[in-house]
Amino acid sequence: MSDLRPPEHQVAGHRAAPNKLGPLVDGAGLFYKPLQALDRGEQELAFYTSFSVHPAVPPSIRDKFFPRFHGTRLLPTAATPGESHPHIVLDDLLEGLPSPSVTDIKIGACTWPPRAPEPYVAKCLAKDRGSTSVLLGFRVSGIRVSDAGGAVWLPDRSELKGTDIPGVRRMLGRYVSSVGGDGMDCALAAAVYGGEGGVLAQLRELKAWFEVQTLFHFYSASVLLIYDANAVTAAGGGGGVRVKLVDFAHVVESEGVIDHNFLGGLCSLIKFIADIVAETSDIVSSGDS
Amino acid sequence: MSDLRPPEHQVAGHRAAPNKLGPLVDGAGLFYKPLQALDRGEQELAFYTSFSVHPAVPPSIRDKFFPRFHGTRLLPTAATPGESHPHIVLDDLLEGLPSPSVTDIKIGACTWPPRAPEPYVAKCLAKDRGSTSVLLGFRVSGIRVSDAGGAVWLPDRSELKGTDIPGVRRMLGRYVSSVGGDGMDCALAAAVYGGEGGVLAQLRELKAWFEVQTLFHFYSASVLLIYDANAVTAAGGGGGVRVKLVDFAHVVESEGVIDHNFLGGLCSLIKFIADIVAETSDIVSSGDS
Repeated sequence: MSDLRPPEHQVAGHRAAPNKLGPLVDGAGLFYKPLQALDRGEQELAFYTSFSVHPAVPPSIRDKFFPRFHGTRLLPTAATPGESHPHIVLDDLLEGLPSPSVTDIKIGACTWPPRAPEPYVAKCLAKDRGSTSVLLGFRVSGIRVSDAGGAVWLPDRSELKGTDIPGVRRMLGRYVSSVGGDGMDCALAAAVYGGEGGVLAQLRELKAWFEVQTLFHFYSASVLLIYDANAVTAAGGGGGVRVKLVDFAHVVESEGVIDHNFLGGLCSLIKFIADIVAETSDIVSSGDS
Repeated sequence: MSDLRPPEHQVAGHRAAPNKLGPLVDGAGLFYKPLQALDRGEQELAFYTSFSVHPAVPPSIRDKFFPRFHGTRLLPTAATPGESHPHIVLDDLLEGLPSPSVTDIKIGACTWPPRAPEPYVAKCLAKDRGSTSVLLGFRVSGIRVSDAGGAVWLPDRSELKGTDIPGVRRMLGRYVSSVGGDGMDCALAAAVYGGEGGVLAQLRELKAWFEVQTLFHFYSASVLLIYDANAVTAAGGGGGVRVKLVDFAHVVESEGVIDHNFLGGLCSLIKFIADIVAETSDIVSSGDS
């Protein structure tokens, strides 16, 4: 209990602060996410409860792409002294990575469930149109790059908010680049994005499931891309690369329809990343000749 | 010239009337679409002009899924006596089919180009949320079924407008059913939707292109599904089944991004039709045993 602390490498979402609830990790593999206000926390908990035992979810998809759900736990919080707050207990997705690089990408042109109440729809729509969501089908919500030399690049949120289409392309390039220089050598593109266990192969596996699953629609959920530069370099292509879905406060049941909004955004992300891999291998090829 | 007449089997869009511009056909394979008001006509013409010679469009995609573009022609119209109006000249997609069955499906959860002016966005968004577009990623804009016995089913527009998700499933079932009885025998599901040259195979070919093409975004465009019951029955599975894209007044250039909105809706339509084929072959199998 006493070992609980805010995660070091969070890139998006609410952060714990002396007067603010935020996620905690125990250093032994568990992540504690405070139940969010309004009905968001209850909705996220309902999703995890249903999803974690749903017979129609292939175990390979659940185990590979989702944090494992370990129920809930009441924890005392600095934000409300003397009181405890319910937390959703999940796998710590960064467990075992000493210096993880993480990108949080909110998927979908539309982040509002179709039957959501009006003020919420208007608020989301303004954010979707004001960011790259409507144009691209996704937006980068957070990014942290930690290269093999230990240098860190962590743009602030205002920088991310102002990002346009070329800016997203640049971010996805910098995510697999050394931090120094102009930060665009794409040195790890083949190892992180390409290869058998790389991001691209994993996203395509996820896509194949989204083409047929009619269980849930994942509004406003994110894909996390995770790697550790040292592990990747040591293991060769794809070693230790993780692709995970998170943030399920706006998941709704699907009424027998595929999640075309998430799927479209996912395909757009796949194309962006495939382009970076192709351009990088062109550079490598022409360097070789 | 004197043979020009309104098409017999139109299922959606503006229709020609004594005081109204509408499309014409010449009975020899050409379709004349009056240039639409505002800048829509100019935009559609600009699309056809660019698309028809674009070196990055695979000829197999252009020839198979798009009406061939034959330039423009000024034609006198009953709507404006003494004046002539420019028309876009295209292939008549129903040419050679004595009693075509046609469904017009507007693809995409979002029918407004992201950079469209505000009143237009609000108008489209209201229609997208009021129809099945946001929920399903597509909506049925028109349908006409003409069975092998010559009977015709043609629901009116108000019936289509009120359609919900189960209603869309029913329409796509009735589209491949005999018109009599309860209109849901799905007698032609295997021949029209299934098989090598069927709707499903053609939609999947189109999907593969949309996964990589970053030339155009097809807002508010429709997929037409076309067959002739007699031709299909005579030829066996997939004979004479046509899948065509139409209505390009809101196509925009893509800024290097795939058309995730169209692709998502297309995948949703594919899943709906694949479900009908699977259910129908289940019925056939259990009938055999």
